Amino acid sequence: MTALHAFRLDDDALHLLDQRALPEEERWLSLVSVESVAEAIETLAVRGAPAIGGAAAAGMVLAARALTSGAHARHAHLTDTALRERLLEADARLRVTRPTAVNLFFALDRMKACFTRALFEGVSGAELRARLEREARAITDEDARMCAAMGAHGQALFEDGDVVLTVCHTGALATCGQGTALGVLKSAQAEGKRVHVLALETRPLLQGARLTAWECQKVGLDVTLLTDGMAGFALARRGVTKAIAGADRIARNGDVANKIGSYGLATLCRAHDVPFYVAAPTSTFDARAERGADIPIEERAADEVRRPRGALFAPADVAVWNPAFDVTPARLVSAIISERGVHYPPYSF
Amino acid sequence: MTALHAFRLDDDALHLLDQRALPEEERWLSLVSVESVAEAIETLAVRGAPAIGGAAAAGMVLAARALTSGAHARHAHLTDTALRERLLEADARLRVTRPTAVNLFFALDRMKACFTRALFEGVSGAELRARLEREARAITDEDARMCAAMGAHGQALFEDGDVVLTVCHTGALATCGQGTALGVLKSAQAEGKRVHVLALETRPLLQGARLTAWECQKVGLDVTLLTDGMAGFALARRGVTKAIAGADRIARNGDVANKIGSYGLATLCRAHDVPFYVAAPTSTFDARAERGADIPIEERAADEVRRPRGALFAPADVAVWNPAFDVTPARLVSAIISERGVHYPPYSF
Repeated sequence: MTALHAFRLDDDALHLLDQRALPEEERWLSLVSVESVAEAIETLAVRGAPAIGGAAAAGMVLAARALTSGAHARHAHLTDTALRERLLEADARLRVTRPTAVNLFFALDRMKACFTRALFEGVSGAELRARLEREARAITDEDARMCAAMGAHGQALFEDGDVVLTVCHTGALATCGQGTALGVLKSAQAEGKRVHVLALETRPLLQGARLTAWECQKVGLDVTLLTDGMAGFALARRGVTKAIAGADRIARNGDVANKIGSYGLATLCRAHDVPFYVAAPTSTFDARAERGADIPIEERAADEVRRPRGALFAPADVAVWNPAFDVTPARLVSAIISERGVHYPPYSF
Repeated sequence: MTALHAFRLDDDALHLLDQRALPEEERWLSLVSVESVAEAIETLAVRGAPAIGGAAAAGMVLAARALTSGAHARHAHLTDTALRERLLEADARLRVTRPTAVNLFFALDRMKACFTRALFEGVSGAELRARLEREARAITDEDARMCAAMGAHGQALFEDGDVVLTVCHTGALATCGQGTALGVLKSAQAEGKRVHVLALETRPLLQGARLTAWECQKVGLDVTLLTDGMAGFALARRGVTKAIAGADRIARNGDVANKIGSYGLATLCRAHDVPFYVAAPTSTFDARAERGADIPIEERAADEVRRPRGALFAPADVAVWNPAFDVTPARLVSAIISERGVHYPPYSF
């Protein structure tokens, strides 16, 4: 079930599945520069909070290679001070790619601590690269383990025959493991519980239609695709028993920033007495955000709404509001599943 | 403001604005057969409950012309019995085009009563055609007057500075006049009240993005386009003060069948203490439906969801649920605006 991967770092490059091309095409990009990784994150070639963190960490490895190694070095023989400044530039570039998913900043914080210490110790270029590669692999390996642990804890909340609404995509391609929310459903399925996924398409960028539907088919989860406006009527007429979402950032009080539409879904679930669960590793928890209002919400380009995938959906010059995320208040979240277990309200992280 | 028309019947043809081509192109179709009108309704070249009724009435005029007049007659010199049977066939064809909007059946009932009486009286083919033309024009003229009256009544519910969520398209192109819900906002604007429309795009067929945004621009209403999943966050963060929708059928208890997404929007409005209004002429009220559960809900083709406007949004073979409408229970409807006035709960029609 974990044969699906968002990316793979080897000695040559960061090989990254271009999620913009799915489901038409499984196209792999081979990235060797920080700028190309930054653009892949900005344009959602790779997306999903944990996967963004892992890809950014790999981006820092590419930065170190370009600065120090024979094969890629443009700036060999830099002084340690100059090297540190160039690495900080790479770090700064990756930090401005997307504002909401906190995993990005946590992963970059770890990589920065790693190269800061290595340079302080005065290690060789080869050793610097080796340490950053180990740290990047540790980040992705930990995420894969957290996915597995979330699955083990979270599957206990699901029963055979559940009909489950999902939003966005929270499977393998969004993480470095089997996924967060979709990973929990995979674990339930692996326990012999048949789960029917009702996947909201998740406009504007259609991660539900393009990625969740595709990944469910790949792993044998029963899936039906709905437009986002159908969530309410599905709750009224399709026997929905649960909903589960991922998270891009969770505040200390349990408020959850996640893909636009999650808040509406949680509100509709509450009106129908259907549990709304969130699955996210603790790398998504932000101790610096007291509440949801403290979380910055990315607004993206109007043409994502007006011209999806080459089709003209609206007058070309009409004004658009395009927040990529929304905030679901903790009172609407029935439980939060992390790698540590299942957390119930009142939340205090 | 009423320069926009969904169709126009003249001596040659039913000239119908092909709403499938908007906003790219203002393409007019010239229809002379019942079958072409039925297909135009089925494929949503014309849509919106009142406009469907008017177009179907015009379709019966075309049927009478084809059966009796020199220019179009293929079956001149039919006996009255044979003529009646052919007209009933045309009526039956138009009745199976779409199941939910009740205006279709009311308009066809009127046209049927008209030709039944004319044939009983033994009038000439020319007189039969003239009577059906008058009846079709009466249906469209009455709808235009009902739109104006809804505007006059409904505008009183709106204030200068209102921020109003809308779903689907309820303007001139959906009716034979200025519109239902959007018509009310036009009337408010004409009274000097500035209203900002937040138009939900309304997947799968995008009547909000393609038609509401376009018509708002045409008539000078301030409009911002949102995807359907943004309704909840707009209520939380964009200062929404009201929502207004049209209706495809209203049951006696006030339950409202309308475009998919309306029920979710009404539920979200209730959670935010924002009024949710419905504007619809009494030709949308169905005395034979006691409650919403009595209203048939059309389910449409999967590719409307998977392949909108030529773009592939999902795996080509993924299962889809595509109800075109949903039912909003009366308890979530703050008021219903008809040409007779503003109706408040408890409803009893």
